[in-house]
Amino acid sequence: MNFKIRAATKEDCKEISRMILELAVFEKMPDQVKISHEELERDGFCQNPFFECLVAEVPEENKSKEGNGIGKGLLSKVAEVGKKKQCVRLQLSVLDWNTPARDFYAAKGALDLTDSEGWHFIRFDNQNLDHLANEAPKD
Amino acid sequence: MNFKIRAATKEDCKEISRMILELAVFEKMPDQVKISHEELERDGFCQNPFFECLVAEVPEENKSKEGNGIGKGLLSKVAEVGKKKQCVRLQLSVLDWNTPARDFYAAKGALDLTDSEGWHFIRFDNQNLDHLANEAPKD
Repeated sequence: MNFKIRAATKEDCKEISRMILELAVFEKMPDQVKISHEELERDGFCQNPFFECLVAEVPEENKSKEGNGIGKGLLSKVAEVGKKKQCVRLQLSVLDWNTPARDFYAAKGALDLTDSEGWHFIRFDNQNLDHLANEAPKD
Repeated sequence: MNFKIRAATKEDCKEISRMILELAVFEKMPDQVKISHEELERDGFCQNPFFECLVAEVPEENKSKEGNGIGKGLLSKVAEVGKKKQCVRLQLSVLDWNTPARDFYAAKGALDLTDSEGWHFIRFDNQNLDHLANEAPKD
């Protein structure tokens, strides 16, 4: 194995931010990325953090290689961390046209819950989130 | 308003557990509920809790009425709590055949990300989660 997986630190947030944008460009929605590295630092490294994160350290000479198993290594490590925390499910989202990712998850035994059970993602944001919050019953 | 919304306490977990099952019966998947109230107590009321929860207190005489706005009240309160925590999105999942819920979210301005962008839910659980975790790179 030519890489090492470790827990992210606050100092990784600039690189994490760059990779979030890189993924969004691949997903054809770069305009949707609003979060900055300062917000990642705040949300991930406070008292009750909103997220945890793993990073893979890859030696310079291996960086250009594809198919080096880093994605699979990271996903497996997330599963391991989850099991240690007594989680019984690992859920994620994938775009319908991302066939390589969908095939990879399926080969690992994952279920597509949108196809098999009909689950849809719903999102409130921007003004509709503001309106909803403003309608909250007052104490 | 004939109900009051408050943060859940450890003592609510038995009732929350009962309502999770009630929802799963409505969703035609009661067998998928594995979590017990003891696990809810452990996961929601520890150091870094896995979840937060709101409950609606409804006076006995209003309990049989439908359309009393409790669902909308709870959803709006979640949006308000989220905004206070500087969240910019509120995401949830809904079944494709649950037309009343889908119409309600749409009327409130929510976007169906499965229809509009093609997002699918993927889940690892049981043996495929175990296998994935066992394949994690060792430190």
